[in-house]
Amino acid sequence: MLPTTVARIAELCNGKAEGDTGRTITGFNALEEANESELSFISNRKSALAAEKSRAACLLVPVNHENAPPRTVIRVPEPRTAFAQVVTSLHAPAKPSAQIHPSAVIAISADIAANCYIGPNVSIGERSKIGAGCIIHAGSVIGDDVTLGENSIVYGNASIYDRVRIGARAVLHSGSVIGADGFGFVFNRDHYEKFPQIGTVVIGDDVELGANTCVDRAALGSTRIGNGTKLDNMVHVAHNCEIGRHVVVAAQTGFSGGVVVGDYAVVGGQVGVGDKAKIEAKAVVGSGAGILTSKIVRAGEPVWGTPARPLREHLQQLASVARLPQLMEQIKELSRRVDALSNH
Amino acid sequence: MLPTTVARIAELCNGKAEGDTGRTITGFNALEEANESELSFISNRKSALAAEKSRAACLLVPVNHENAPPRTVIRVPEPRTAFAQVVTSLHAPAKPSAQIHPSAVIAISADIAANCYIGPNVSIGERSKIGAGCIIHAGSVIGDDVTLGENSIVYGNASIYDRVRIGARAVLHSGSVIGADGFGFVFNRDHYEKFPQIGTVVIGDDVELGANTCVDRAALGSTRIGNGTKLDNMVHVAHNCEIGRHVVVAAQTGFSGGVVVGDYAVVGGQVGVGDKAKIEAKAVVGSGAGILTSKIVRAGEPVWGTPARPLREHLQQLASVARLPQLMEQIKELSRRVDALSNH
Amino acid sequence: MLPTTVARIAELCNGKAEGDTGRTITGFNALEEANESELSFISNRKSALAAEKSRAACLLVPVNHENAPPRTVIRVPEPRTAFAQVVTSLHAPAKPSAQIHPSAVIAISADIAANCYIGPNVSIGERSKIGAGCIIHAGSVIGDDVTLGENSIVYGNASIYDRVRIGARAVLHSGSVIGADGFGFVFNRDHYEKFPQIGTVVIGDDVELGANTCVDRAALGSTRIGNGTKLDNMVHVAHNCEIGRHVVVAAQTGFSGGVVVGDYAVVGGQVGVGDKAKIEAKAVVGSGAGILTSKIVRAGEPVWGTPARPLREHLQQLASVARLPQLMEQIKELSRRVDALSNH
Repeated sequence: MLPTTVARIAELCNGKAEGDTGRTITGFNALEEANESELSFISNRKSALAAEKSRAACLLVPVNHENAPPRTVIRVPEPRTAFAQVVTSLHAPAKPSAQIHPSAVIAISADIAANCYIGPNVSIGERSKIGAGCIIHAGSVIGDDVTLGENSIVYGNASIYDRVRIGARAVLHSGSVIGADGFGFVFNRDHYEKFPQIGTVVIGDDVELGANTCVDRAALGSTRIGNGTKLDNMVHVAHNCEIGRHVVVAAQTGFSGGVVVGDYAVVGGQVGVGDKAKIEAKAVVGSGAGILTSKIVRAGEPVWGTPARPLREHLQQLASVARLPQLMEQIKELSRRVDALSNH
Repeated sequence: MLPTTVARIAELCNGKAEGDTGRTITGFNALEEANESELSFISNRKSALAAEKSRAACLLVPVNHENAPPRTVIRVPEPRTAFAQVVTSLHAPAKPSAQIHPSAVIAISADIAANCYIGPNVSIGERSKIGAGCIIHAGSVIGDDVTLGENSIVYGNASIYDRVRIGARAVLHSGSVIGADGFGFVFNRDHYEKFPQIGTVVIGDDVELGANTCVDRAALGSTRIGNGTKLDNMVHVAHNCEIGRHVVVAAQTGFSGGVVVGDYAVVGGQVGVGDKAKIEAKAVVGSGAGILTSKIVRAGEPVWGTPARPLREHLQQLASVARLPQLMEQIKELSRRVDALSNH
Repeated sequence: MLPTTVARIAELCNGKAEGDTGRTITGFNALEEANESELSFISNRKSALAAEKSRAACLLVPVNHENAPPRTVIRVPEPRTAFAQVVTSLHAPAKPSAQIHPSAVIAISADIAANCYIGPNVSIGERSKIGAGCIIHAGSVIGDDVTLGENSIVYGNASIYDRVRIGARAVLHSGSVIGADGFGFVFNRDHYEKFPQIGTVVIGDDVELGANTCVDRAALGSTRIGNGTKLDNMVHVAHNCEIGRHVVVAAQTGFSGGVVVGDYAVVGGQVGVGDKAKIEAKAVVGSGAGILTSKIVRAGEPVWGTPARPLREHLQQLASVARLPQLMEQIKELSRRVDALSNH
C-alpha cells in the first residue's frame, strides 16, 4: 500500500497532522536511520532530543509535543502503538500465495483447509488438520493427529509432534519443537527407565513461540499455553506446565515440570523456575532469577535474584553485600575501641 | 492392548488387587484428571489425600496404603514405577511400519538394516550404517560415515554430522545437533583462526537427548556420552567432554570443553560448568549452579550456587546474607554502646 | 595430502625438526591418544610432563623445550597455532563436489554462483544470491532476497529468513536460525500486539555461528554482527543488537534488544545482557555474568557476577561473603566484651 501521504497516515492512526501533510511516505524507520521519505516516531524524552537531528519525513509525536523548530508531525496519544498500527496496515509482510508445493509430503488422511501455503519439503502426518489460511514454511515437520488453527504461521524447520493442538493465528518460529517427550525417568536399581510420556500439548490462539523454543508434552494430561502468550527464543517449557493467557517470557528462560504461570505475568530472560513452582497472575520475574521448587510468587509481585524474593528485599540485600567491606572496617574499629576501653 | 481389566493390570505389575477386580480400564491419567475408566497412582502422602477425590477406576497404591473409604486399588511396593511399567506395556506408542519413504535421499553406499522406518525428506550420507528397527522421522539429516545402533529413534529435523557413532536404543529428539564443530579458535595477531575440529562424538546405548540439545565433536579424539545417560532439552555438551553412564542432566545446562562427569551424577537445569571441571560419580549439582574451570566436585557430594560449593555451606551462606540487615543494626547498636562507655 | 613425513611438516610450519625426520605421519591426535604414526603437540608445562608417556610419532614443541630423553620433535614458537596450521593444510575436510541435488527446491529467480554444493531437500527462495563455492547441506531453508557470500558453509537444517545478508566464508551450524522476528510487542488494553519487525540481519565475513544459535532481525534497521566474530552454540542475539568485529561469545549467552558489543570483546557462556547495555571493545565478561539494562562495561575491563562489576570487586565481594559466619562470631564476641565493660 506504499507510497502514501502524511495525511493518509494521520487518518489511519486517528492523529492530527501538522506541516506538509501532502508529503510522500515510502517507508518506516528508526529515528536515527530514517531518510527524507520515511516515517518515524518519538517514544520518550530521550528520542524527543534525537528528533531534532532526524531526517525523517514525518514523526508520530505525543499530543503535547513541543514542535520547535516546526516540522511535519502527527500528534497521537501513544506514538509507539500508533506507529505499530500504521506499519502493520501499510507494510503487510508479503504473504506467499496459496499453494501446496509438490515436494511437500502430506498424508492422504490429513485435512488442509482453503488458502493455505504449504512450502517445499514440508511433511504433514495422518489425520492432521490445518486451518484455513495457514502458512507452513519449508522443511517443517508436522506429525499425526495435529490440529493447527486458522491463519497460523509455521516458519521453516519447525517440528510439531503427534497429537499437539495449536489455536488460531499462532506464530511458530524456525526450529521450535512442540510436543517432544517430557523429561521423566524412574530409577530402577542401576539404570533409568522412561516414565511414559503419553500426554500432549495444547496451545491457545494468538500465541507466538520464538526460534528454537521447546514445549514438551505432558507425561499424562496436557502441557498448556493460554491465548495471547508470547515466548521468546530458546524458552524451555517442561511437561505438564500450565502457562496462562497473555504471559510474556523473554529468551532462554526454563520452566521445570508442572510449573503454573498466571495470566499477564511477565517473565524476564534466563529465568529458571523449579518443579511445580507457581507464578501468580501479573507477577513480574526479573531476568536471571531462580525460583525454587514449589515456591509461590504472589500475584502482581515483582521478584528478582536467586533464590527469587520480592524486588525491594533483593535490592536491599545487594546493597548490604556491597557494604560488606565497609562493615568489616567498622567491626575492626569497634574492636580497637573496645580494646582501648578494656585496657583503660 | 487396551481395554483391559484391573485383575490383568495387577498381574502385569505383580500387585495385589482389592475391590472390583473385573472393572474395565481404558486408559491412564493423573490422579486429578483420571475418569471412571482410567488407571492412576498415588506417589506420596499429598496424593494420598487427593486420592479420595479422584474419579479414577483404580489406583496403584503403596503396600501399606490405608484404603478408606474402600475403593478399587492395586498394592505395589513402588506405585510410580509400577504405573510406568503398566503404561509402557499396554500403551506402546504407535510404531510406524517399516518403510523407506520415496522422498528420502539415501546414499547408495549407506547400509539400512531390516525393519527401519525412514521418513519423508530424510537424508543419509555415504557409508552410514543404520541398525535394524530404527525410526528416523521426517527432515532429519544424517551425514557420512555415521553409525546408529539398533532400535534407535531420531525425531524430525535432528542433525547428525559426519562420523558420529551412536549406540542402540538411542532417542534423539527434534532439533538435536550431534557432531557440530567444537568452539575452538586460535588468536593470530588481529583475528581468530579455527582450531581444526577433526575428532568425533561417540554416544553409548540407551541414551536420550532432548529437543535442540547440542553435542559438539572433539577437536581431536572423541566427545563421549556413556550408556543410559539422559539429557533434557537445550543442553550444551562442548568438545571433548566425557559424560559417564546413567547421568541425568536437566534442561539448558552447559558443559564447557573437556568436562568430565562421572557415572550416576545428577545435574540440574541451567547449570554452567567451566572448562575441564570434573563432576565425580553420583555427585548432585543443584539447578543454576556455576562450577568454575578445573573445579572438582567430589563423588556423591551435593553442591549448589555460584561458585558451586557443598550444599550445606551454600545454604549457610544464603542464611548469613539474609541476616545482613540485622547484623548492621547490631553493629550500630554496639557502636552506640561503645560511644556511651567512652564518654562515661 | 596424508601420509606425509616429519620433514615435510617442519617445512609447513617453519619449524626445526629433530630426530627421525623421515618418519611417516598418517594423522593428528591429542597427546594422550596419539598412536605411533600420529603428530601431536605440547601446549604447556602440564603436557610437557605428559609428553614423556605419549606414543606420538612426533611432537610440535616450544623452541626452548628440553628434549630429554630425546625423541622426534619439531620446534616452533607457538606449538598450538602451528599444529592448527599443519592440520588445516593437510587434513582439509572432504569438500562435497559441486552439484545441486535434484531434490533441492530453488526459485527460478535465485542466483547460485559457480562451484556450489546444494544438498538434498534444501530450499532457496526468490531472488536470493548464493556466492561461489558455497556449501549448503541437506534440509537447510533459505528465504527470499537472502545474500550469502562466497565460500560459506551452511550445515544441515539451518534456517535463514527473508532479506538476511551474510558475508563471505561464513559458517552456520545446524539448527541456527537467522532473521526470526525480534521479540517486540505493544500492550494494548488487555492483550499484546506485535510491534512490526521489518528490519533485517547483516552478518560480516568470516563469522561462525554455533548449532541452534539464533540471531533475530531488527524491528527497524538491522541487527549486525561484524567480521570475524564467532558465536558458540545456542547463543541468542535479539533485535537491533550490534556485535562488533572479532568478538567471541561462548555457549548459551543471551543479548537482549539493542545491545552493543565492541570489537575483540570476549564474552563467556550463559551470560545475560540486558536491553541496550554496552560492552566496549576488548572487555571480558566472565561466564554466568548478568549485565543490567543500559549498563556500560568499559573497554578492556574484565567483569563478572550478577550484577556484573569489575572482576577485582567481584572477587572481593565473594571473599567477604565467605567470611560472613566469622564476622558474626566477631560481633557476638564484641557484644560480650561490651556487656562486660558495661557491668564493670
